This record gives sequence, structure tokens and C-alpha cells, in this order.
Amino acid sequence: VSLLACVPNVSEGRRPERIRRFAEAVRSVTSVQLLDVSSDPDHNRSVLTLAGSSQGLITALLALFEVALADIDLGTHEGVHPRVGAVDVVPFVPLQESSMAEAVQAARRLGRRVASSFGVPVYFYEAAATVPGRRNLAALRSSKRFAPGCEIREREWLPDFGPSRVHPTAGVTLIGARSFLVAFNVLLDTANLELAREVAAAVRESNGGLPAVKAMGVLLPTRGCAQVSMNLVDYRQTSPVRALRRVKEEARARGCQVVASEIVGLIPSDAVSHSMNECLQLENDVGRQILEDKLRRPDL
Amino acid sequence: VSLLACVPNVSEGRRPERIRRFAEAVRSVTSVQLLDVSSDPDHNRSVLTLAGSSQGLITALLALFEVALADIDLGTHEGVHPRVGAVDVVPFVPLQESSMAEAVQAARRLGRRVASSFGVPVYFYEAAATVPGRRNLAALRSSKRFAPGCEIREREWLPDFGPSRVHPTAGVTLIGARSFLVAFNVLLDTANLELAREVAAAVRESNGGLPAVKAMGVLLPTRGCAQVSMNLVDYRQTSPVRALRRVKEEARARGCQVVASEIVGLIPSDAVSHSMNECLQLENDVGRQILEDKLRRPDL
Repeated sequence: VSLLACVPNVSEGRRPERIRRFAEAVRSVTSVQLLDVSSDPDHNRSVLTLAGSSQGLITALLALFEVALADIDLGTHEGVHPRVGAVDVVPFVPLQESSMAEAVQAARRLGRRVASSFGVPVYFYEAAATVPGRRNLAALRSSKRFAPGCEIREREWLPDFGPSRVHPTAGVTLIGARSFLVAFNVLLDTANLELAREVAAAVRESNGGLPAVKAMGVLLPTRGCAQVSMNLVDYRQTSPVRALRRVKEEARARGCQVVASEIVGLIPSDAVSHSMNECLQLENDVGRQILEDKLRRPDL
Repeated sequence: VSLLACVPNVSEGRRPERIRRFAEAVRSVTSVQLLDVSSDPDHNRSVLTLAGSSQGLITALLALFEVALADIDLGTHEGVHPRVGAVDVVPFVPLQESSMAEAVQAARRLGRRVASSFGVPVYFYEAAATVPGRRNLAALRSSKRFAPGCEIREREWLPDFGPSRVHPTAGVTLIGARSFLVAFNVLLDTANLELAREVAAAVRESNGGLPAVKAMGVLLPTRGCAQVSMNLVDYRQTSPVRALRRVKEEARARGCQVVASEIVGLIPSDAVSHSMNECLQLENDVGRQILEDKLRRPDL
């Protein structure tokens, strides 16, 4: 059975007892591994990383929807991260030998079940998109059409599955298929949201910034700091090292400094060694020099 | 059986057929894994990384001595790296559950065998040293007493095992026990050896530079560049990231630049993630966020 990852982003990052219930729901499917749970109170969002077969993941996700939709009311939800659903985005990611086609198929199968079981409108994005205008998650999410309880009238914005009325507490859900990305956030020494937005605008690819980088500026109330929140969708094009370097330059040009950064969720080991090669200007690939890898596979 | 590593440094880094024979000699012991061979023509030196039981490693090392001593004549050997033996240094390193005491015991057992089988004077260093003055490898190696064929007269410099006369072609061998170190070389954009020596002097611990750093400056004829060659003996005290940062500062202060760097041999995965944490100013430990590690051990 080929292995997929699934990285649901759930609109709850504050209440530990709820987050624990999400994890328990997923773990109830014994064939699925819950690899990581990352929660942020300011974003008010939790990112779960699961691995398993297509069927196992779909069962686990349906269990997650069940508890998340019971717990979360998007009408009263607050948080600095944009979101359109209680279970906001659900990307499937091919791992190892599995293909993007398998990830797309898993996304489509889950989408049908979510719509029929929970009455939530489902939109497919990235590789799972059914129309080109829905490939880009940012464009899809920035739509103002998805306010809880709203009726979606434009034909081109009707969901792929489910009712045309946005669910009053669960919103809509965006289900996709994509490659593994690195979620990388950089904290600035300023509480000026506008500065973080300017830096984000300067580094993001769609403005001619760094290739394969999506970025937004947010303000973290609990930290009293602005943050540049990035998705590095191809670390071989732009690694965390290059992204940080550019953010530092753009921040300095605006009179502020980077104080810290974080990787949200998991990162492929190759992305770490690739970053290390860049950081140290290595002539050789440190990814082929890891002691523990050699001990596991001396033929490397 | 507890696992040790052994990292013999052999004074041959130019002739591939010889280096292949070294590897074959080691591989003849099936219980030992040859994890890596790194050769450098300017240093004229090869670093082999082996893992196995104490007994397996000793057998493999004796096979290595057999071929290396047949091939190498230290009297005619050239190379920018200081050396006192055909098989120059042989450190044993505890891995996983094994202890430094086991590494010391392996070093002592090998030393006795090398002296009796090959008539080469053996000196124990670092944790295997029998007298405090021999703990430091650099001090031991800088001795002028070890020229091939010389008679060692001072009582305090008599070898731990073997004859008092330095072997005419094989020199002496330094056998030790130590923790895993990171061999890290930084290339400068200058052919001025003196500059590299100044930078090395500024970063090394013994001069009040960076903690847990040994450093020397060498000139690489094939590259036309000077190099700062370092041993980072505790990457938690000074990582490759910090070492490079300091070398860059010291080089800049002398009007030259870093052009590239290299890690020689293997590096523990924890040293990579530790470096990445520093490079990216990460608030969390990326070593606990590696996708492949989690897939192997979801309980992490």
C-alpha cells in the first residue's frame, strides 16, 4: 500500500482539550500515524501531520471532521491567520513511492464524503483543482463569499461537492493535493503589522520576490510582535536559509530586525541538508554525510 | 555487542588504487561497516569511518595497517597536513550505547597488536592517553622526535608500545579514544598561507578563540587557495555555523573572503539540526521535526 501524508489545518489553536480530542479522533484509526501536532494561539490554528494509506487517511479525516465540527463555531472564531473553515484546508501529499495522482484521488474521495456526511461545501485546490482558478489556495481563501451562512450565487464559485450555502458554523473546506511544503515563520522586533506586510509583499513570488514562496504579514498579540508567515512550496528553489536572508534584508531596509523563526509542522530531511549546504557554502552535500543514515544503510 | 566507530587517518590521498586497497582491506572483515572514505590530494590523506564491535574493528584495522604500511613510505610522503605515521591517527569513538571506557580499551588492544605485529611505535592520546602530556593530539603530533628512522631518547617520549626507534617508512601511530568530532574546512579566496594561519590562530580555543575548536592554516596547491582546517570537538559548544561565522569575520578583517567549505567524513544528524537551529534562529529544535524520523518512529 503506498503511503500518503495529509496535513489538515484546523481552526483551533488555543484550547488544549479540543486539540487533544482532534488527535484522539485521528489516532482512533490504528493504521494511520499521527506524526505531529503544531498549534499556535495567535493563529488560533493547529496543523496535524498524518501518514497512512489513502483509505486510512480518509477514515481518520472523517473522524477529525466529526469532532472539529462539533467543537468549532467559525462564526465566533478569532485568529490572525485567514481561514474559511472549521477544518480549513486538507492537503494530501505524496510520500516516497506514491504519486500526485494518488493524492488527488484521495482528496476527491474525502471531498465527496465530507460534503455528504457533514453538509459542508468542498472546494478542491492545487493539483486536485477541477478548474484553473481554484488551483491557488491564497486566491481561493481570499474570497469574501465564504462567510458562514452565506448563499453562494455565482455559478463559477459553486463548490465541487456539497450545498451552495456556506455552513453556518463549519464554513467551507478546501481539500487539495500538493507536494510537501515547509511552513516557515519569521518574527520581527516590531509590533507594526504594516511593516511585516511590506516585507511579506517583497519576498513573495507573486510580486516578483523569491521563487516558490508564499508570504503574508500577521500580528501576534501574545508575542507583541509582527510575523512574516511563509509557505516554501519548493525548498530546492527557495530554502529556509534563503528566505530568512531575504526577510532580514527587507526588514533591515525598513528599520527592523529578525528576532527568531520557526518551522511549523515537519520538514523533509533533504530540506534540512539542502539548507545546511547553503548556510555553510558546502562543496559537498551534507545529506550524504550523516552518520546515522550511513549506519542504517552502509551502501549509501 | 556494543558499537564503536573508528576513524583512521591514512597518509595517502592521491592514488585511487591505493585508497581502494585500504577500503578492501577493511571490508574483508564482514562484521565491520565501512561508512565513508574521504580523500584529499592536497592534504594527501584519507579519512575512513568504520563501525563495528571492538573485536571486529581491531581485526579490520590490522588488515588496514598491513596494506597501508606496504604502500606508504613516510620518508617520501608529501602533503600539507601534518602527520607522523603512514597510518597517522586512529581514534576510537563510542556510538549509541557504548562508553568511552570501551573505546579506550579498544585503542589499547589495537596499540599492543600494532606494535607487536608491525614494529611501529604506538602512542595513546586523548581519553586513551597514559600520561597527561599526551592527551592533546596537536601537541603529540608537533613533536619533532618522530622523523622516520630516528631514535627516541628522552624517557618521557618513549612509546606506550613498540620500539624506541621511529619506523623508517611507517613512522609512529597515534591511537586514541575521543567523542565524535566534526572536521570542517573553510576555503579562502587567497593563496596567502600566512593569512589562513592568522585566521586559524584567531579562532582556535587554545588562543582564546572559539570553545572546542582546533584550527590550522594550510595551502592547497591544487586549488590555489589557503584553507582554515578545523576540528570541532564539541559541536554543541561551537557548531559549523558559528565556526564559519567567526572565520568569515576574521578573514574579512584581513581583507579576504570565504569561498566555500567542506565537512570531511561524517557528521551526526544532531550536529546538522543543531547547526540549522542556529543558522535559522529557530525557537524550536528542527531535530524533532524531521519527517523521515517521525515516519520511522511516530512516538518521537
